Amino acid sequence: MKQSHLFTKVRKELPADEVSINAQLLLRAGYIHKEMAGVYAYLPLGWRVMNKVMQVIREEMNVVGGQELFLTSLQDSKKWKDTGRWSDEVIDVWFRTTMANGTEVGLANTHEEAIAQVMINHIHSYKDLPVVAYQFQTKFRNELRAKSGIMRSREFIMKDMYSFSRNKEEHDAFYEKAQQAYINVFERLGIGNVTYFTFASGGSFSQFSHEFQTVSEVGEDTIYIDEEKGIALNKEVYTDEVMEMLGVKKDTLVEKAAVEVGNIFTLGTKYAEALNLSYTDEDGSVNPVFMGSYGIGPGRVMGAIVELLHDDKGIVWPDAIAPFRFHLVNLNKDSVQADSVYDSLQRAGFDVLYDDRSASAGAKLAEADLLGMPYRLVIGSRTGDKVEHTVRKTGKSDLYSVDELISQHA
Amino acid sequence: MKQSHLFTKVRKELPADEVSINAQLLLRAGYIHKEMAGVYAYLPLGWRVMNKVMQVIREEMNVVGGQELFLTSLQDSKKWKDTGRWSDEVIDVWFRTTMANGTEVGLANTHEEAIAQVMINHIHSYKDLPVVAYQFQTKFRNELRAKSGIMRSREFIMKDMYSFSRNKEEHDAFYEKAQQAYINVFERLGIGNVTYFTFASGGSFSQFSHEFQTVSEVGEDTIYIDEEKGIALNKEVYTDEVMEMLGVKKDTLVEKAAVEVGNIFTLGTKYAEALNLSYTDEDGSVNPVFMGSYGIGPGRVMGAIVELLHDDKGIVWPDAIAPFRFHLVNLNKDSVQADSVYDSLQRAGFDVLYDDRSASAGAKLAEADLLGMPYRLVIGSRTGDKVEHTVRKTGKSDLYSVDELISQHA
Repeated sequence: MKQSHLFTKVRKELPADEVSINAQLLLRAGYIHKEMAGVYAYLPLGWRVMNKVMQVIREEMNVVGGQELFLTSLQDSKKWKDTGRWSDEVIDVWFRTTMANGTEVGLANTHEEAIAQVMINHIHSYKDLPVVAYQFQTKFRNELRAKSGIMRSREFIMKDMYSFSRNKEEHDAFYEKAQQAYINVFERLGIGNVTYFTFASGGSFSQFSHEFQTVSEVGEDTIYIDEEKGIALNKEVYTDEVMEMLGVKKDTLVEKAAVEVGNIFTLGTKYAEALNLSYTDEDGSVNPVFMGSYGIGPGRVMGAIVELLHDDKGIVWPDAIAPFRFHLVNLNKDSVQADSVYDSLQRAGFDVLYDDRSASAGAKLAEADLLGMPYRLVIGSRTGDKVEHTVRKTGKSDLYSVDELISQHA
Repeated sequence: MKQSHLFTKVRKELPADEVSINAQLLLRAGYIHKEMAGVYAYLPLGWRVMNKVMQVIREEMNVVGGQELFLTSLQDSKKWKDTGRWSDEVIDVWFRTTMANGTEVGLANTHEEAIAQVMINHIHSYKDLPVVAYQFQTKFRNELRAKSGIMRSREFIMKDMYSFSRNKEEHDAFYEKAQQAYINVFERLGIGNVTYFTFASGGSFSQFSHEFQTVSEVGEDTIYIDEEKGIALNKEVYTDEVMEMLGVKKDTLVEKAAVEVGNIFTLGTKYAEALNLSYTDEDGSVNPVFMGSYGIGPGRVMGAIVELLHDDKGIVWPDAIAPFRFHLVNLNKDSVQADSVYDSLQRAGFDVLYDDRSASAGAKLAEADLLGMPYRLVIGSRTGDKVEHTVRKTGKSDLYSVDELISQHA
């Protein structure tokens, strides 16, 4: 894409109330827009990042048999009353609104009740199980405070997946697959090495649930890491009993602040029982369906990555989710050489942001650093017929011909 | 996809209050779920259709330079008060909700105010214009009645595009391009021949706006078609004056019911003036930005297509948006031959729904008709080493080898 065509500009003045680093950088670089506190729009560059994050997640959910659907934001209160979650004392982040006929409805903050209701129409027999379904959809949470930028917002896209199994055994087998899918997601997103599989408190049906916690100074959570085993405990389960059970020792655990980027949870038959989601088993008995839920917030992941991977010049995107792989910056007066490099890279199938604007070299280079594409390509009077290739993360520069460039990145 | 893996089932019992044909068929076939009146979830097959519709639209919006973004559902009331559209007397479909701090906010039913606010940060000079941006996003409309299935719902995804131009001349040039993009969309979606470019009333900045109206018995609108010119007038502009201006004659116009599947509108400087969205021109003067808006509801398009293209056996999808091109139905006891055909078609890059379940031939064939994939492939005792290929739309059947099948559809 030619940057002269991109409508977003680098901004100098930011909303006065913005305190988070992730939102400050993303606002300055024109990736997002702040509608109001805790409510952010994604502008073209930011939406490209979000789509790349979502596509990585989608591919991994498909691998474990997830079927994509799209539930609704407006929620009938009835089934939430059946599970006891309509009350503000149980869920304290409801947004509610009123239909023209006077009926009060809720804006979905999660979708267990909604998807269980869908499954009542489609799950009848043990032969219909297991079922795994997921969506990417806006969730609304009426947070009292929202000071973490896109890491905790009042409105955000969430990938939420739900599993429906015959019994705990079938559920456990899927839960393990989901766990691996989550590990793959964070690995592919470039934060695998700082994201820990973290034990958290479970519920009636399982001693533990699990969180995926990314170590970050701005994290709202505290975790206790066993580096050797590559696992962590959250505060809820940081007890002598659990440590013994997991074979970890207090004096080797390292306490760190972290951001919860995902969680997986055994729901058991709680929702199925409250909502009458049941199946007929081989022996003719009618049993409640055994459920699990699996969440990742792509916006939170994006925010956490900005918090982790930035320097004093700007954002440093990992390859997998950068809006463009290359930022081609033309410093020459004419554009013949740069146009030709742009065409060659596009033909070779690469995503390229091409700064074809007339501006000072200093301004263009500073903007490339702020925007944070992984590889900057500069063409100027000193690069001759070659291209200066700079890795954003390390600052390492080399002169390459276009052919060398393409083969290096193939 | 193997049908044994698809979680949705054909349903016999439908919600008692469902009166529209599109929703009845889509519910029976398991494409959608009814959360409540006017609020529908898209299940895997339905979500595949929606994504195909959206992808066609996306490609055509990109061709005219549209940049995709994603605005927010929660809307700060301030800018809506500035344009006078916060009041229920002006916009009678607001859903409103209250933040934890007591502030009242709205759920977006359209996004002119929101996107103009975004552009205030990014449009400064005439050099920044024109700008075209669009999104696919949930809109909320608090309709008093919702009896048209997915053609008019209280919550629905809309593609809304907005253009920002220097003046009417620059706007008009883009408006014409957008018009062509819309014609391309409906052509590609398979309803070009029954969708009319329809003159509707404009506003202060343009005598006309334009609607794209698809002829349908269940349409809520009435249009007057000039078949020869391929244009129509809606009720608002069905006057002697306009007929003369357009060179059409009353006695050749045909009155028909139609569904509005898209509209394009010249907004002029109304929003820019109310919200202070301005740019500095070449001569140093500061002028309001000239806006246009361009909407298509993919769900309404999908519903209108179901209304138009169905028969007494079920849905008849056009090729471009069918969830799968082929419905491969195995009637043999063993699956050796069918598995092999499935593999060959998948390797050749086709979307195939493969009915690998054990059920009666009658049930499987009836279900294939209801689900409505454009090409049914039957393998059974009477087809030998060939495949019976039936066109859903015409019922025409032929016996093909797999190679013939692939080359026919290449």
